[in-house]
Amino acid sequence: MTPLAELITPALLLDVGVLERNCEAMAQRAARHGVALRPHLKTAKSAEVARRATRGQGGGLTVSTVAEAAYFARRGFTDLTYAVGIDANKIEALHGIQRASGARVTLLADRIDAVQAADSRARVLGATFRLLLEIDTGGGRGGVDPNDDELLSLAHEVQRSESLSLAGVLTHAGHSYHVQGGTAIRAVAEAERAGAVQAAGRLRAAGMPVDVVSVGSTPTAVCAQTLEGVTEMRPGVYTFFDLDQAARGICGVEDIALSVLATVIGHNPRSRRVLIDAGALALSKDQSAAEFRGGLGFGLVCHAGGTVPLPGLCVAELHQEHGLISCDGDDDGVQAMFRALPVGSRVRVLPHHACMTAAPYDRYHVVEGAGSGVQAVWDKARGWQAGA
Amino acid sequence: MTPLAELITPALLLDVGVLERNCEAMAQRAARHGVALRPHLKTAKSAEVARRATRGQGGGLTVSTVAEAAYFARRGFTDLTYAVGIDANKIEALHGIQRASGARVTLLADRIDAVQAADSRARVLGATFRLLLEIDTGGGRGGVDPNDDELLSLAHEVQRSESLSLAGVLTHAGHSYHVQGGTAIRAVAEAERAGAVQAAGRLRAAGMPVDVVSVGSTPTAVCAQTLEGVTEMRPGVYTFFDLDQAARGICGVEDIALSVLATVIGHNPRSRRVLIDAGALALSKDQSAAEFRGGLGFGLVCHAGGTVPLPGLCVAELHQEHGLISCDGDDDGVQAMFRALPVGSRVRVLPHHACMTAAPYDRYHVVEGAGSGVQAVWDKARGWQAGA
Repeated sequence: MTPLAELITPALLLDVGVLERNCEAMAQRAARHGVALRPHLKTAKSAEVARRATRGQGGGLTVSTVAEAAYFARRGFTDLTYAVGIDANKIEALHGIQRASGARVTLLADRIDAVQAADSRARVLGATFRLLLEIDTGGGRGGVDPNDDELLSLAHEVQRSESLSLAGVLTHAGHSYHVQGGTAIRAVAEAERAGAVQAAGRLRAAGMPVDVVSVGSTPTAVCAQTLEGVTEMRPGVYTFFDLDQAARGICGVEDIALSVLATVIGHNPRSRRVLIDAGALALSKDQSAAEFRGGLGFGLVCHAGGTVPLPGLCVAELHQEHGLISCDGDDDGVQAMFRALPVGSRVRVLPHHACMTAAPYDRYHVVEGAGSGVQAVWDKARGWQAGA
Repeated sequence: MTPLAELITPALLLDVGVLERNCEAMAQRAARHGVALRPHLKTAKSAEVARRATRGQGGGLTVSTVAEAAYFARRGFTDLTYAVGIDANKIEALHGIQRASGARVTLLADRIDAVQAADSRARVLGATFRLLLEIDTGGGRGGVDPNDDELLSLAHEVQRSESLSLAGVLTHAGHSYHVQGGTAIRAVAEAERAGAVQAAGRLRAAGMPVDVVSVGSTPTAVCAQTLEGVTEMRPGVYTFFDLDQAARGICGVEDIALSVLATVIGHNPRSRRVLIDAGALALSKDQSAAEFRGGLGFGLVCHAGGTVPLPGLCVAELHQEHGLISCDGDDDGVQAMFRALPVGSRVRVLPHHACMTAAPYDRYHVVEGAGSGVQAVWDKARGWQAGA
């Protein structure tokens, strides 16, 4: 077991005990609602995380890039939903993934021209895909209005195509990220559910097959009171959680499985800052949680041995490869901070948004509990090219 | 020559004509000031960019990570300054780079304990390094006050060490990024120069060798009136420029060499948004230029064939793999935007901060001028591990 002190920093730490607990809690929620759990692996991009997140489930995953689809297909995950509106230029790569691995990649579309373009590329290649129709249940990102005639036209277009088969409907209540508290999130969850079920009902009434009614986002998955009529949910960030989810009450800080290990490389008494070697690239500039909670800077700071935030400290500034930690105290507080974080010591930073922080890294250093060394190294996907 | 239409998006485009012009202009500035140009490759992380940026120069580079040091050493760059305060845990990797490639990696420190820790590791390995002392000339990040006694103690500590030799002083006027206009930036540039020269003078007066007096930041390199007493400058982002530099008047929008190619994957008439497949990971959430200019959102939008921003359009929202483009017009404007950017069409997004945007990508697709296809693909370093 490698001691944390021997890692080259910045490095991504993942607490497998917290991960397993988060996965188990979400599996229980899905079971309670009687829906399948198709975890969104855009957060973790890791096969080892996917194995834990799909334990006791059908094994289906949600992905956000062709690179993730290729990575998971190569590692034996054969049921993938690529939950970004399909661009016909990606059809050849996705077909290659299906052919090489035997996996099935289910597509998403909300436009007749996108369906036609995808079908046209797929026909040339002799490829076939299942396709979900994207429904806008208030997020204002992708999707058709569940009550619009466009929904039926779109479904007919899929039915008419040679290469595509209609699998059902999918929605993502992205706006659940901008409300706080159980009541508000429950309302978004109900709008998400009701819109998806409404769309499914209209399609079925028109004689269309709708196997899949897919909803998802971590806040709505945690807070939904009912998922009646839904077949699956697709939360993602719950695997790791982060300050953003904690700030809106979806989890506790102790549920955050992901942190960045960094080394103290300096003290600046004039600017009252402790310098660490984790900057804007290592932590991301995401400050999502600031919408709901102050004093977080670009992340909370813990001693390397655990994940209990040091009171009053945060990463106050980011440069490309430098993070600057401040404390909210007076001169004595600054001196205490310097003593607590000597040059050469290590800290963990809890991130605002786990998806943004984890993305650029190649691997997770797996720990378990306070004081743990590195028990394992897990690979992960990154970027957009269908690589290793 | 691959047409842009055949690339998988998101993809990083680099206009080599603009790059060469930016490199030539900075080389001329360095020549005018009589200083060496040691470009900071933290922005481009690319050997092909480094070759252009060092044309007519000594070939020395500045790097910000061990991964960059390894990448450039393996590609024949033998004079590298690792311009982040040294962490002793990185000594072994840097020694490995020196041994494998014959490159010389010059270190940076501003603390006696950091010098001692680095020396201790280096001695065990039989490694030797040149080392620069970091001077704080107002940035408040790393560095000692040029007038503080600590400067001399630090230099003596380096002189006493077995493995380290004193190379000179280095400063980075990072606060030049938060002022706008020639007068204000010239004042920062002069403080940067004067502080570094003052530190060098005090060391020389104490009998210390000071070969290198290194300053740098793109704004101060562009605006400095004199660099008397300085031996080298280390600007980086000037190779690509970006909206942030344009917003503070350091370059024009037409000088931006870097853009992200994305595909239009949807229109949402309810939220009045055009959806593209370049989101927070592909563009970064950096909004640096907003300090000086409004209306930029997360980047300006151009047709794929060029880099002239479409009036009134910007990337207004980012999700992980989705960008949402808005326009500042009325309903007719929204319809015009939808017509201008049909589903399946391609756009280029000009980024706020080129360093943040380029970092996660594996390669540059090199174009030249409006309407160009891909002339070449250049590899690049990324992440923190000393990889390929």
